[in-house]
Amino acid sequence: EPLDLLKSNGFEIVINPYGRKLSQEEIIKLLNGASGLLAGLESLDSTVFESAPMLKAISRIGIGLDNVDLDAANQFGIKVSNTPDAPTIAVAEMTIAAALSITRNIVSSNLDMHNKNWEKSIGFGLNDANVLFIGYGRIGQKTAEYFRLMGANIYVYDPNLTDQDIKENDTLIDLSEGLQLADIITIHSSGKTPIITDQNFRKIKKGAILLNSARGNLIEENVLIKALDDNIISNAWLDVFQEEPYYGDLCTYDNVLLTPHISTYTTQCRKNMEIAAVKNLIKILK
Amino acid sequence: EPLDLLKSNGFEIVINPYGRKLSQEEIIKLLNGASGLLAGLESLDSTVFESAPMLKAISRIGIGLDNVDLDAANQFGIKVSNTPDAPTIAVAEMTIAAALSITRNIVSSNLDMHNKNWEKSIGFGLNDANVLFIGYGRIGQKTAEYFRLMGANIYVYDPNLTDQDIKENDTLIDLSEGLQLADIITIHSSGKTPIITDQNFRKIKKGAILLNSARGNLIEENVLIKALDDNIISNAWLDVFQEEPYYGDLCTYDNVLLTPHISTYTTQCRKNMEIAAVKNLIKILK
Repeated sequence: EPLDLLKSNGFEIVINPYGRKLSQEEIIKLLNGASGLLAGLESLDSTVFESAPMLKAISRIGIGLDNVDLDAANQFGIKVSNTPDAPTIAVAEMTIAAALSITRNIVSSNLDMHNKNWEKSIGFGLNDANVLFIGYGRIGQKTAEYFRLMGANIYVYDPNLTDQDIKENDTLIDLSEGLQLADIITIHSSGKTPIITDQNFRKIKKGAILLNSARGNLIEENVLIKALDDNIISNAWLDVFQEEPYYGDLCTYDNVLLTPHISTYTTQCRKNMEIAAVKNLIKILK
Repeated sequence: EPLDLLKSNGFEIVINPYGRKLSQEEIIKLLNGASGLLAGLESLDSTVFESAPMLKAISRIGIGLDNVDLDAANQFGIKVSNTPDAPTIAVAEMTIAAALSITRNIVSSNLDMHNKNWEKSIGFGLNDANVLFIGYGRIGQKTAEYFRLMGANIYVYDPNLTDQDIKENDTLIDLSEGLQLADIITIHSSGKTPIITDQNFRKIKKGAILLNSARGNLIEENVLIKALDDNIISNAWLDVFQEEPYYGDLCTYDNVLLTPHISTYTTQCRKNMEIAAVKNLIKILK
């Protein structure tokens, strides 16, 4: 469907033949004469732009623009777009999925059963649980809808918001107060400054669950490991890492649920993102 | 809290000293002179009632009454109660938890990551998925609320209902039509007659997901195994089994998520069920 949309608008298409993230050398070769680029996470900077004088538009299939040198693109007269809305539902759904997997002992119970070990364990219902949202943009708000329906109390830490931006029964809160009362802490902020740090992790309520689907650098890994070893954080879910692919120490922690940056990986979301990116590209180039 | 409630109402309490399901011999010994019983899944029939002439009330902590011979209880003048409302939220939450674990590849991705294998797989969002509810009582309706918010289309097969009982955008449907269009089939009916049988399982849409948190005997296990082996059912979640504890053949199927009958096992639900059961007992005995 996304490719058909391009063809019906008269564009000629060159497809990445490698089925993986391209090197700069590869991308320069493939961009030969192209006026538009539907981009993944390839590193796009002045080196690329200098070798692609026809390039007028970069349309990211996704939200993040860390891989694009925006100043350089601007200098070269290349317009850059992304698809901020498409991933909202998929990421929110993945966050509640991960939360429930942890709170209802899904992974450990399933492993036990497959080892023919019938052992009932008591889970933790979201009903009346305190959930702290760090960052409350599109994805945070959608995720809160799911937690709210399950009966959770929603607390929001977001320096950009005031009480008027928050739903009636939800509570805007300081980070340090929020860490002290949250049963679940879920990170949905952008930015590059770590939020869970050596300075504040001891404020976290004992036994809390930490979820991160936003950015790897928002949690200092050595701090998380300390918090796990000291039983401050009982369980965590990470879908993002400072370096990806991730093969680090957390792979040995059974109480850390790990997924390989797949929060947006649903058939529906990929299709929506691709269509949105194609539409952005057509709009710029026409 | 539940025990305090009994004490403050003047009752003397004898606690199960074994921390597990009692044998009939054990229960007869412990019932010595008791007027009320807060019951789990112990088998309660005329043998027990004959040896407990003071027994006036059995209050089940839970919904199911299969373990109580109701005719015999009636003959012995023993009133029987259960707690039908308390488990609703916990079971609905567990069902959406299991569904999301499957659709978003949580278990398999987590296993890969812990084996230091970074492999992204595409999941299946609930947005616009067709979900067939077989049985639509309290728990089915609550579960549908969760699926509905995630954007799923709700289809209901329940011979006891008419269109008036169904929400506006939901659809009442025949079983065989429902099996043909459902991406997810979730069982929430009572009754003892199998629903997924040798006669109808080939109607199921190829690749569907089957969820059962209701009763083990509603799915014929050999039929499920055939459906899995023929790739008719791609994944299943079972929390209930014809015989429990379960150590059968499905323990070897990676695409079957298994949990040991823990849908009601949350701290909140256990407490609510215990309090409801204590209140039932006090009401009958006072």
